Amino acid sequence: MNIVIIGAGVMGSALTVPLSHNGHDVNLWGTELDGDIVASIRANGRHPRLDAQIPHEVRTYTVDQLPEAVNGRELVLMAITSDALGKIFRRVAPFLRSGQMVVSVSKGFDYDERGRVILLPEVLTAIMPPEIRAGIPLVCVGGPSKAVEVAHRVPTAVVYAGESLETARLCRKIFGTPFYMVEPSSDLTGLEACAALKNAYAIALGLCEGLGRASGIPHNNTKSALFTYATCEMADIALALGGRGETAFGLAGSGDLEVTGEAGRNRILGELIGQGLDANTAVGQMRAKGQTVEGYPAAKLGYELCDRLSAEGLLARERFALLEATYSILYRGAPPHEVLQVFLNRRVSA
Amino acid sequence: MNIVIIGAGVMGSALTVPLSHNGHDVNLWGTELDGDIVASIRANGRHPRLDAQIPHEVRTYTVDQLPEAVNGRELVLMAITSDALGKIFRRVAPFLRSGQMVVSVSKGFDYDERGRVILLPEVLTAIMPPEIRAGIPLVCVGGPSKAVEVAHRVPTAVVYAGESLETARLCRKIFGTPFYMVEPSSDLTGLEACAALKNAYAIALGLCEGLGRASGIPHNNTKSALFTYATCEMADIALALGGRGETAFGLAGSGDLEVTGEAGRNRILGELIGQGLDANTAVGQMRAKGQTVEGYPAAKLGYELCDRLSAEGLLARERFALLEATYSILYRGAPPHEVLQVFLNRRVSA
Repeated sequence: MNIVIIGAGVMGSALTVPLSHNGHDVNLWGTELDGDIVASIRANGRHPRLDAQIPHEVRTYTVDQLPEAVNGRELVLMAITSDALGKIFRRVAPFLRSGQMVVSVSKGFDYDERGRVILLPEVLTAIMPPEIRAGIPLVCVGGPSKAVEVAHRVPTAVVYAGESLETARLCRKIFGTPFYMVEPSSDLTGLEACAALKNAYAIALGLCEGLGRASGIPHNNTKSALFTYATCEMADIALALGGRGETAFGLAGSGDLEVTGEAGRNRILGELIGQGLDANTAVGQMRAKGQTVEGYPAAKLGYELCDRLSAEGLLARERFALLEATYSILYRGAPPHEVLQVFLNRRVSA
Repeated sequence: MNIVIIGAGVMGSALTVPLSHNGHDVNLWGTELDGDIVASIRANGRHPRLDAQIPHEVRTYTVDQLPEAVNGRELVLMAITSDALGKIFRRVAPFLRSGQMVVSVSKGFDYDERGRVILLPEVLTAIMPPEIRAGIPLVCVGGPSKAVEVAHRVPTAVVYAGESLETARLCRKIFGTPFYMVEPSSDLTGLEACAALKNAYAIALGLCEGLGRASGIPHNNTKSALFTYATCEMADIALALGGRGETAFGLAGSGDLEVTGEAGRNRILGELIGQGLDANTAVGQMRAKGQTVEGYPAAKLGYELCDRLSAEGLLARERFALLEATYSILYRGAPPHEVLQVFLNRRVSA
């Protein structure tokens, strides 16, 4: 199959490994932020941030070579951070043709033109030329997959969710290898809700790590209780959005939250705040090191989304109380220990 | 309320903190293994393994003072390791009276007289004098609760499951505090199945840590996928035993697995084996340090239990394939990386 990967960041580049394993013809296009990466791959085959070899048969394209990269490709894999997804997809859209497939590994929320919070599939759908929209199946990816591990063939199990199960099953054939295993799903909405929300909840888990460090007593009990309730909230929010609750208890929900809570920037931000730093300072410190934290905007957008669902009568407020607690800690300076304890007391008594 | 805690180990002793907080009159009885602990509490109020103060109003009793400790108590809290639970409860049984309540924090499996694997509530029930059995409500405890954290008032949320929800709700009143929060449940079977099995699955999660260390590439993707499937297997096994599947997705299942997989001996055993040590050597090394690993026998007994459920047509073999994989690594020398990858490939394709 002829495939183009849009974005040469860690996840887009890591997926060249299973795709090349399956013998596909892969173009890898770098954005204006990926110039160094493309140069490094061209020079010595290595991706600097993955510390791994990119399969030598993969062709690389620089930001000015988008037409050559995309033309004639049967599958377009979007591997762009959520905040830039719309911007980049608008550049790709003129090259789309009916019969192509679009797969996205981006995770997060965005705003629509009216300022309403939406899931990323809606972002992509709104940009596709309407006359060919019906002819372009859209598939999104969830589940625990650190890119570095995918690139090094560490056994990884993920979910590909399409508007139809048939398309998701086709993705299993295209992407699935013995080390990169694909569960097909038709719950695109549930998967995307979990994918976006888990970054916010991972900050809440990180808060417990920070509280443990600050007090000298680990807060693993608190963290594991929050983990469980976060999964339940993801299920309720997915349901309210029209998705399926059980998706939250599978790889795309609890699995992805598990891996995100173990390590990564969301957890680090939570740790800093749990140790006593105010959220603004903590985010500022991480930004100064070039570290954006996906869960920070996700907590705000996720809370706004739930607030709307609540106003529309689709989701009771207590069903997203942990997200609200996390939001109030991150954006309103609420004290983590007190807020989390109050949340737990209410939730357990519910 | 008048309460006796049987067993002065970490969990029994930690529970003196919420119980004293609620103003109960608490006796703490130490087994023949707890002599040093009782002596330390009597000398300076400190529990040596918890590194915490035991509330001064708690009365301690040595192994020879069982009658004084138990007589007239309205609630008997069994806090004994699973392998010794039957032995110790046989000593307590002659003091039981109708109208008392028995609560157990032990987790694990045992064999009955016919050599069949059973859950711990069955162990306790079989020992209670039959003429008063109906008059003694039994409640068991699950969920993420490291004893040290309970003793230090770290926010903790647990599940108390009784044969009736009413009894479990009574336990919330007795045990629940703002820092030790109690979810009542009537799914005694599901809770106990999860409580026993999670130790075995925590070894499987530890294997991934070891594989990561040995290869130099973290195996967090693998670990998180196994975490998710372990939760699903606990749900299926709980169902086959007559419990409720959703218990596995709550505090007693995924919550307790989360905290157990983060730290503790089960994880350490898995790490050692994942790094290349054979299981016998690893268990021997830990025994030499006085460290028993609850998940090691739990993997064997859990596997035997599932094997029987499968033979009885109550549980399909693929529903406990991760438990079987873990068993084969621990008891048959199967190679972890290969066995876990084969498990994941089959599970994802199922």
